[in-house]
Amino acid sequence: MQNSTLRTLLQQIQDGSLDIDQGLKQLRDLPFKDIGHTKIDMHRALRNGFPEVIYAAGKTAEQVLEIFIRMKQHNHVLATRVPKATATYVLERLPQVNYNQQAATLTHVCGEIAYQPNPIGIITAGTSDLKVAEEAKVTCEMLGSNAYIISDIGVAGIHRLLDKLDELRKASVLIVIAGMEGALASVIGGLVSQPIIAVPTSVGYGANFQGLSALLGMLTSCASGVSVVNIDNGFGAACAACKINNLLGDKKEMTV
Amino acid sequence: MQNSTLRTLLQQIQDGSLDIDQGLKQLRDLPFKDIGHTKIDMHRALRNGFPEVIYAAGKTAEQVLEIFIRMKQHNHVLATRVPKATATYVLERLPQVNYNQQAATLTHVCGEIAYQPNPIGIITAGTSDLKVAEEAKVTCEMLGSNAYIISDIGVAGIHRLLDKLDELRKASVLIVIAGMEGALASVIGGLVSQPIIAVPTSVGYGANFQGLSALLGMLTSCASGVSVVNIDNGFGAACAACKINNLLGDKKEMTV
Amino acid sequence: MQNSTLRTLLQQIQDGSLDIDQGLKQLRDLPFKDIGHTKIDMHRALRNGFPEVIYAAGKTAEQVLEIFIRMKQHNHVLATRVPKATATYVLERLPQVNYNQQAATLTHVCGEIAYQPNPIGIITAGTSDLKVAEEAKVTCEMLGSNAYIISDIGVAGIHRLLDKLDELRKASVLIVIAGMEGALASVIGGLVSQPIIAVPTSVGYGANFQGLSALLGMLTSCASGVSVVNIDNGFGAACAACKINNLLGDKKEMTV
Amino acid sequence: MQNSTLRTLLQQIQDGSLDIDQGLKQLRDLPFKDIGHTKIDMHRALRNGFPEVIYAAGKTAEQVLEIFIRMKQHNHVLATRVPKATATYVLERLPQVNYNQQAATLTHVCGEIAYQPNPIGIITAGTSDLKVAEEAKVTCEMLGSNAYIISDIGVAGIHRLLDKLDELRKASVLIVIAGMEGALASVIGGLVSQPIIAVPTSVGYGANFQGLSALLGMLTSCASGVSVVNIDNGFGAACAACKINNLLGDKKEMTV
Amino acid sequence: MQNSTLRTLLQQIQDGSLDIDQGLKQLRDLPFKDIGHTKIDMHRALRNGFPEVIYAAGKTAEQVLEIFIRMKQHNHVLATRVPKATATYVLERLPQVNYNQQAATLTHVCGEIAYQPNPIGIITAGTSDLKVAEEAKVTCEMLGSNAYIISDIGVAGIHRLLDKLDELRKASVLIVIAGMEGALASVIGGLVSQPIIAVPTSVGYGANFQGLSALLGMLTSCASGVSVVNIDNGFGAACAACKINNLLGDKKEMTV
Amino acid sequence: MQNSTLRTLLQQIQDGSLDIDQGLKQLRDLPFKDIGHTKIDMHRALRNGFPEVIYAAGKTAEQVLEIFIRMKQHNHVLATRVPKATATYVLERLPQVNYNQQAATLTHVCGEIAYQPNPIGIITAGTSDLKVAEEAKVTCEMLGSNAYIISDIGVAGIHRLLDKLDELRKASVLIVIAGMEGALASVIGGLVSQPIIAVPTSVGYGANFQGLSALLGMLTSCASGVSVVNIDNGFGAACAACKINNLLGDKKEMTV
Amino acid sequence: MQNSTLRTLLQQIQDGSLDIDQGLKQLRDLPFKDIGHTKIDMHRALRNGFPEVIYAAGKTAEQVLEIFIRMKQHNHVLATRVPKATATYVLERLPQVNYNQQAATLTHVCGEIAYQPNPIGIITAGTSDLKVAEEAKVTCEMLGSNAYIISDIGVAGIHRLLDKLDELRKASVLIVIAGMEGALASVIGGLVSQPIIAVPTSVGYGANFQGLSALLGMLTSCASGVSVVNIDNGFGAACAACKINNLLGDKKEMTV
Amino acid sequence: MQNSTLRTLLQQIQDGSLDIDQGLKQLRDLPFKDIGHTKIDMHRALRNGFPEVIYAAGKTAEQVLEIFIRMKQHNHVLATRVPKATATYVLERLPQVNYNQQAATLTHVCGEIAYQPNPIGIITAGTSDLKVAEEAKVTCEMLGSNAYIISDIGVAGIHRLLDKLDELRKASVLIVIAGMEGALASVIGGLVSQPIIAVPTSVGYGANFQGLSALLGMLTSCASGVSVVNIDNGFGAACAACKINNLLGDKKEMTV
Repeated sequence: MQNSTLRTLLQQIQDGSLDIDQGLKQLRDLPFKDIGHTKIDMHRALRNGFPEVIYAAGKTAEQVLEIFIRMKQHNHVLATRVPKATATYVLERLPQVNYNQQAATLTHVCGEIAYQPNPIGIITAGTSDLKVAEEAKVTCEMLGSNAYIISDIGVAGIHRLLDKLDELRKASVLIVIAGMEGALASVIGGLVSQPIIAVPTSVGYGANFQGLSALLGMLTSCASGVSVVNIDNGFGAACAACKINNLLGDKKEMTV
Repeated sequence: MQNSTLRTLLQQIQDGSLDIDQGLKQLRDLPFKDIGHTKIDMHRALRNGFPEVIYAAGKTAEQVLEIFIRMKQHNHVLATRVPKATATYVLERLPQVNYNQQAATLTHVCGEIAYQPNPIGIITAGTSDLKVAEEAKVTCEMLGSNAYIISDIGVAGIHRLLDKLDELRKASVLIVIAGMEGALASVIGGLVSQPIIAVPTSVGYGANFQGLSALLGMLTSCASGVSVVNIDNGFGAACAACKINNLLGDKKEMTV
Repeated sequence: MQNSTLRTLLQQIQDGSLDIDQGLKQLRDLPFKDIGHTKIDMHRALRNGFPEVIYAAGKTAEQVLEIFIRMKQHNHVLATRVPKATATYVLERLPQVNYNQQAATLTHVCGEIAYQPNPIGIITAGTSDLKVAEEAKVTCEMLGSNAYIISDIGVAGIHRLLDKLDELRKASVLIVIAGMEGALASVIGGLVSQPIIAVPTSVGYGANFQGLSALLGMLTSCASGVSVVNIDNGFGAACAACKINNLLGDKKEMTV
Repeated sequence: MQNSTLRTLLQQIQDGSLDIDQGLKQLRDLPFKDIGHTKIDMHRALRNGFPEVIYAAGKTAEQVLEIFIRMKQHNHVLATRVPKATATYVLERLPQVNYNQQAATLTHVCGEIAYQPNPIGIITAGTSDLKVAEEAKVTCEMLGSNAYIISDIGVAGIHRLLDKLDELRKASVLIVIAGMEGALASVIGGLVSQPIIAVPTSVGYGANFQGLSALLGMLTSCASGVSVVNIDNGFGAACAACKINNLLGDKKEMTV
Repeated sequence: MQNSTLRTLLQQIQDGSLDIDQGLKQLRDLPFKDIGHTKIDMHRALRNGFPEVIYAAGKTAEQVLEIFIRMKQHNHVLATRVPKATATYVLERLPQVNYNQQAATLTHVCGEIAYQPNPIGIITAGTSDLKVAEEAKVTCEMLGSNAYIISDIGVAGIHRLLDKLDELRKASVLIVIAGMEGALASVIGGLVSQPIIAVPTSVGYGANFQGLSALLGMLTSCASGVSVVNIDNGFGAACAACKINNLLGDKKEMTV
Repeated sequence: MQNSTLRTLLQQIQDGSLDIDQGLKQLRDLPFKDIGHTKIDMHRALRNGFPEVIYAAGKTAEQVLEIFIRMKQHNHVLATRVPKATATYVLERLPQVNYNQQAATLTHVCGEIAYQPNPIGIITAGTSDLKVAEEAKVTCEMLGSNAYIISDIGVAGIHRLLDKLDELRKASVLIVIAGMEGALASVIGGLVSQPIIAVPTSVGYGANFQGLSALLGMLTSCASGVSVVNIDNGFGAACAACKINNLLGDKKEMTV
Repeated sequence: MQNSTLRTLLQQIQDGSLDIDQGLKQLRDLPFKDIGHTKIDMHRALRNGFPEVIYAAGKTAEQVLEIFIRMKQHNHVLATRVPKATATYVLERLPQVNYNQQAATLTHVCGEIAYQPNPIGIITAGTSDLKVAEEAKVTCEMLGSNAYIISDIGVAGIHRLLDKLDELRKASVLIVIAGMEGALASVIGGLVSQPIIAVPTSVGYGANFQGLSALLGMLTSCASGVSVVNIDNGFGAACAACKINNLLGDKKEMTV
Repeated sequence: MQNSTLRTLLQQIQDGSLDIDQGLKQLRDLPFKDIGHTKIDMHRALRNGFPEVIYAAGKTAEQVLEIFIRMKQHNHVLATRVPKATATYVLERLPQVNYNQQAATLTHVCGEIAYQPNPIGIITAGTSDLKVAEEAKVTCEMLGSNAYIISDIGVAGIHRLLDKLDELRKASVLIVIAGMEGALASVIGGLVSQPIIAVPTSVGYGANFQGLSALLGMLTSCASGVSVVNIDNGFGAACAACKINNLLGDKKEMTV
């Protein structure tokens, strides 16, 4: 209930067009969102170009299709972790939907996406991390930020990384994706001044324990100011990065 | 070696005031930082108001004192995790140094700190998380961002949190600090659109496993875009938040 | 051995129709249950409408079928974690058995179930938790409690939850099912006064560690009075909830 | 804001003693609890005899004292995990506060506690679990339920347990407290039909891993319907048990 | 090299039929077992009826077959963890080999097994533990001990267990097999005085963590004198039990 | 209730000196142990020379003293994990009690202990494991088995172990105690044929994780037939070994 | 940029054939490796006979093929963890590539490999560890060291190991591969003086936890000077061993 | 028994100065080391300048003193992990013993140490790792290798590391010591070609889990050929490094 609605209600009480019991009842029945207008605002903001997001891993092909059909006329739609069979099922029925096999995403853009002026940089330690990077890239784009990927610059060949410093500096925010020991986040964290969102990946075996080594490594990074999302969570990193990029808007990044 | 220095060297070669062997040697001896000018820039940026940071937990009182003496004329200095005995030792010899017992920090401001226009909000689930919050606050201030703390608005009393939504919205970035199950990050993540840096704390016992429950909870948060730092790492969260705040500069935050 | 049996034995000793050695032997051979009459009582209670429960995950289709055939004339029968192939095998031979694919249960009601007057509420954070919720619902119903499911009201959209408060209040006991960080139990625990049985689910990936994050989160919940069952254990939660509901009987719940 | 308050406000609007802008402001400023009447109800319930609870482990003696002073005129107060030094400090200043050293609680009863008619049974496997049992007992009593402790009936001497079956049956709810392997919950769960809240304790060493063995054992109990709280969490178990006991009210328990 | 061999060698040196260099060489080349006569003894003991044991899980069908062919004329042979395909492959070529599908063993008895007079009792908590029990039983028999299985007497129905006490008492050693929380070992440990070898199984899910809950539970059992083998290790438990049974030989067990 | 007691009761019924109601009451009131005669036997066995065992770690000095005073006239008494202060307290009041500081035990022998003819061998990998070995030795002796310790024959110096093979062979059962990687159990398990009870110790640091490395190592030992007790649990190992030794009685061990 | 290149540049500046701006640009554009000449040296060394290494587990058959085609004219190529399908795909198109199924490697030797004079010894505890041993052997050979495998000399049969001491002594470096408890590394570490690289394997089950038991065991080995690589990482162990072997060159090993 | 001893024995048999029974007895009684001459060699090698090593953490001051007194006339002696009180106790009685407080070592050199020509480089990520580095350095020196420490060149300031490349290259073997995420091993592993022994340290907090993050990070390092020792195990790393250095002897390292 926005201010004007609330004012109207009180006016109706005042002018007698609403009696007190009815007024009490209306106030009682106000859905929460009418009071917590912040959330209304947020919802409005979200409706301005933000996609509906479907985590397809736990859903049937039919459910994913149904959501696409229901949403796609008024919303951008982003489905992540889409199994290939689900993608095939949806594409046969909605051929205009875009499928990115490496990212395992299905996307539908409703109208046009307005992009932020600053791009987000996505860095991977190895080529095996590319799946996570692609998920992050597609998510960034659906959330309104351009993104570019620089892959395979892990710390065991530090010169490959140093060669790319200029490219790293072009982004407002960096998403750093690494499996194994996840050291890339620490090294980049010491070289650049942008915010860094680190994504540990499950690339590795044995003492990697499905990403635990990279996760713990990134959390205990000796480079201050690196923050971390869940293992293999390219989507979450992109969300965090886009929140920052949206905040920045058209401001040019610091001259670091 | 900045461009002008490098140019001077080449000019000296060209005009014969430096012979080739000496030139070779100078180039060979260039410390890395002279070539990797990115880091020069960063260093310069750092020198413009960024503090020297001392992790005092693993150092003797004498070592901490010595670093303060050496640094304090040209730098802001921030020492974190300062045991009380170390603080007393330093304060007896350098009474002008500031000691914040709850934050366990010693700070020295060299001249003045130039603050960013937007403040950082620091939220805690319980009063026991205040130590971490204070460490974050002192760090923010030493890194050039004002910060305010809203404490004790954990999710078991959701109305306390909803009452504070307006205050939460005043910050450009939110640091959300919670122990136990760490659910506060998820709930706030669903209510606001600013970047959120979540700090799990070791507050709790038993299945908390020294902060593991909050850490895993925040990493697997159902609220997209929450990124996480190490357990009890108020300092690291402040660094991440300030990187974002510095990027933003005087831009007003999004109207969310 | 019930009191009357025991009395008869002593009378036979007294009147000489049983000699002491035979009496000793009979006492020696008394199965435990004849002394521990509590368990007799419990068994009787159990026979009054409680189902035989089969954990089908570790059994062959033949074994499950056999138990159904043996039990179904005198008992309600509930088989949980029934693989689809097992269900098909049983249904081909016992078409009157009910199969709930989402719950992965096979059920047979022998006569009629007498239901408790108060319903049990089953709440899920996301739609992926529905399998666990359905297992809980079927179990509740087989144990004599009606149950209703409210799904997809996770804490990242707190207003969805607040909108459902009235519905939550209609149950005598709440089963709260959530994966990822499991924060839903904490938030609901702070909003309602009914007993809450929390079920962590393995929904999630990475730092979820097959449900560990939700499990630890629920165990360390900042909301007092939440108790927890095993990961994905909808069956166990329903048992715990029905024990409470049976205790309550036709008493109307507290006016909270 | 209770209904009558809200009604008064609307009446003031209606009769003109409050103008609309002031009315709007009052409604705007209403703390959340005034709209979310569910919570009002709960708060009222809480005020009717429920204690303020202080987790003293993370607080200074001064803080604990201050809360006692502030609360004790209008509320029952319960402080848990009170270090001995804190207790001494408070008792010197507030001698009428009750200190239970084994439970590590400080309590103040404001007026009188109205007790539920059914008692709660607290069972421990060993005498080393008594600290947790005492915390549970004090909490039960402060929350309005009588409680009795039966200790040292661990499963390695099953006859001790069987001897106590009649006593176990007198409670409406059982809190079962055990360290080491925590098997007591499973065995009791198979013998009685009341709701069981299991509390793993950190009693043990080595592979006990500070209570992990009991925790996992209770969570995977072969006895259906056992629900579990955090390690050593006598307080939480009491809260869960009292929620059930309050629900039951004066209804006599099932004749199991 | 047995004493007599060694004596012969020295005699040959003494009588000159062997020169010193050849003697030296023979001594040098003595395989270790000739010096460490303990192991000779052990080997002899092993050859007296002990099987060759093949852990088939990591071997190809061809390798298992080859070992059977090579061994089966002079040895009993026991292959454990035999995949069905491997069993089929071997049986097609060696139809006289015995395949126990539930135990996943292939066995060949070379001549006859001499059995110890006392049987070993194998107890399981649930029917899902039968695979492990069968592996233990087959192993016992191949190692020369008769064994009997009592299954499905888990602690949630303590009367089932108490009814079987007499049967439990007939064995010289008990192997107690249980998954979930593994409490059966503690309860039996408190009821009988025989040595108990406990086998945790991976039966369960969630917080069972593939047998960890039962493993930790058995290791921290409150019943003294329970020793534990690896998760699902029916073979190892049988080896431990047979070592005890062999030690006992024809001695009648204690009258406990 | 022993057989003779039970017979007397029946005789009293038969001869009329006890009426049926009183007989019923006596039978009803029989503590469980009177029916479950197995346990009577065990209790009798226990009373014949078995000590009362006190786990002193969780008890006050007063409690330990009290148990000693109460028990020591009719029982052997063994207290384990006795803190030095507790020992001092007890010894000042009961100077005849024996204190073994390294074993951390207090013992009182009531009359005389009848020893089994075969000794138990206790082997340690390093001298730091001696505390656990001493606890095992004292326990063995209180339970009626002589025991000898061979220490510091860890596998990194395999010749030290091989030199001791003859001594190892003199025991009926071996308790093998090792920290770090716990490999000693595997090596001895391959060299001797006696039953082996392995005790992992917390000796070590880092990846030892308080005994976890030795525990897992012993559980996964490549030597079949090694069974394991809890970390540092010398007491439990002695109980398991004595159960075997009691079973064996005066039978000479196998000639292995 | 090698010294001569750098010198040429300066000479061109000096003699005017390159102007200063172009010189500046060339220096600016120098890839890092031109300054960090260490890495140039290393690269040169690498190019002299070191293979390109492909971790095939995370790559498609097409990608692996492409790398082979691109590399094989100028480099040795080693692909590890090659799935059988990938191998088949590559071999159909490049029949001259060598496939070692047990090692799961594809290799191509470009010209000839120059071997180090000293061989590397690879020891396994069991035959199930052979896959890892083969990966290590192929890697050694591709990196220029001959290697031999001694398998199945686990510590449960210590004589098998002692019989092989002479063969163990022929290697300059030993790679010791063991699953289960990994004790082989400790025992060999106590018997020989060469450097030992230990490889824990995932051979085992239950408390092996996918290699964790062997990993922790090797890390906490009581034999000083054993260093460890990741679980199942035959490749990494070979790299570490070859680094040592290369260092040694043609020097004969110590006469230990 | 060396060859000559064995030959003498056989000659005595041959010439009749020893009869066969005595010969048999002597052969029987030969301690293992006399047959396994490898170990004799090793022992001899050890006696040539290798220290006796005492792990003082688990020993009393008296025990450590006693070992020093017994050993110091014929051996170098190295005690590690010496508590300060123990050191004081020993130094008061043996003032000539050397105490290195940071390394926590006591050392005694008996005569002179012959050093290997190549030094060992010890690198630390931070100054808090210096304790481990000092332990490694003292150990290297006692084992006959000179060592130098380069500290505080963690990866967050990669230029500090690159500046030291020449110094790194002077060592034959590198010991790389790092806490937190342990990334330094990966980065150095990519920059140099010497063997690298990585030591994870427990420096850090929270998700460091007492060194687990660094341990897992180093084990899963993307730089091939890094091998790892236990957390904080400077001693073990030095042993491994010295084994390599001894192997190398006076050979100059590879010109990489």
